[in-house]
Amino acid sequence: MSIGEEKQVSRVGGGICGCILDSSAKEFPALLNYAGTDLVEWRLDCFNRRFEKEPPELFFEAMSNASRHPVVATNRPRREMGTFDGPEDARLRILEQAAIAGAEWVDIELDAAEGSVAGFHELGVKVLVSSHHPEGTPSLKQLRALLEKMAGTGAQALKIAAYARAVEDNLRVLELVTIARKEFGTDLIAFCMGPAGKLSRIACLLLGSPWTYARLPGQPAAAPGQLSDDEVRTLLEVLEHE
Amino acid sequence: MSIGEEKQVSRVGGGICGCILDSSAKEFPALLNYAGTDLVEWRLDCFNRRFEKEPPELFFEAMSNASRHPVVATNRPRREMGTFDGPEDARLRILEQAAIAGAEWVDIELDAAEGSVAGFHELGVKVLVSSHHPEGTPSLKQLRALLEKMAGTGAQALKIAAYARAVEDNLRVLELVTIARKEFGTDLIAFCMGPAGKLSRIACLLLGSPWTYARLPGQPAAAPGQLSDDEVRTLLEVLEHE
Repeated sequence: MSIGEEKQVSRVGGGICGCILDSSAKEFPALLNYAGTDLVEWRLDCFNRRFEKEPPELFFEAMSNASRHPVVATNRPRREMGTFDGPEDARLRILEQAAIAGAEWVDIELDAAEGSVAGFHELGVKVLVSSHHPEGTPSLKQLRALLEKMAGTGAQALKIAAYARAVEDNLRVLELVTIARKEFGTDLIAFCMGPAGKLSRIACLLLGSPWTYARLPGQPAAAPGQLSDDEVRTLLEVLEHE
Repeated sequence: MSIGEEKQVSRVGGGICGCILDSSAKEFPALLNYAGTDLVEWRLDCFNRRFEKEPPELFFEAMSNASRHPVVATNRPRREMGTFDGPEDARLRILEQAAIAGAEWVDIELDAAEGSVAGFHELGVKVLVSSHHPEGTPSLKQLRALLEKMAGTGAQALKIAAYARAVEDNLRVLELVTIARKEFGTDLIAFCMGPAGKLSRIACLLLGSPWTYARLPGQPAAAPGQLSDDEVRTLLEVLEHE
């Protein structure tokens, strides 16, 4: 993919965020600079076992490399579909280290936001507050209430991901992207997980979400129904407009 | 495209309806049987000038060919974004001829439905009642009222097309597809025209619309933002699910 094509993708208003779930320290810099994405999510929780052999510092060094995309540092706990199962303060401390190492964003789950957003802002990192619903897609009324609560955290952007049991579940999650912008003045990434939710992963970008998550070559999907960066680009090429 | 691939497309629940806006009588049978679509819309109103040189009968003969897709006969008047500008009784008589020649569906605009649906049913043809909104997308309340009126016509399926001024306009038009099925027990093809409406042309199919309209090779687009049959297939390959 050439730089020109990357710019074309960004024209929609959002970008592709490639998810890094595993990498050796040696291969890490190349993933941080992979040409097919606009930014990357570093899923630190998936690196737990890796860090026993190659400590975080080896990876943090790559964050000072000028040739890399902006990084969203995520350390997802089990309660929110992640794999980190240690104490909460240890979990947040790893995110702090990532912020200090130069990550542009940290992803904080809503239930951890109240006590931590201000502290992350003091470190100079932007905060994305997230909420995950693997059991199904809440009603529009519930989603609205959730959005209002999330918008109150002072985060720079929000993320809501809910499992789609039917294709129509996509529509009320997508409606939130517009509501977030118009009623709360906030950027929201909102999409459905699962095979029936693929539509929303591209639609949220067209509706103005700052980015959509994508699977990178050689990486596993971070969630069911996740599209590859190639697939997102294919869809954008057909659907995007001036 | 192989027959196997065609079946894969139909698995979503709907199909691709290729729009025929111009053809010589000689080339017409091949278009009616074009492998890239599941059915075709014959836009009779666009054939007005053509019929001065090659009369309708030459084309109707192709309808008795066993090797063709189901045909939706449409004779769109100017008031609904078409090109037919003759008297209303002449317009409907052409559709009757198409039905007698073997068309499976006729497309009747809502304002012509009351006096004509029963008559078309007597001819043994299925009726699609349609409504077009080139100026913009009505509110959800207006769309609901329109749907209720359309569902009362006794048509086998309904079509609503509205111009998208913003991407979010897609969402309330798409919501109607689910409302039509759940509240009115009716199949609805609902999508937005224009570049910002491309998303809905694939999303309506995923939501259960019986078909979506597509531009065929060598044919002009029947409406702004219309996708080609190739583009629809590309999108389905990424987005469809079991």
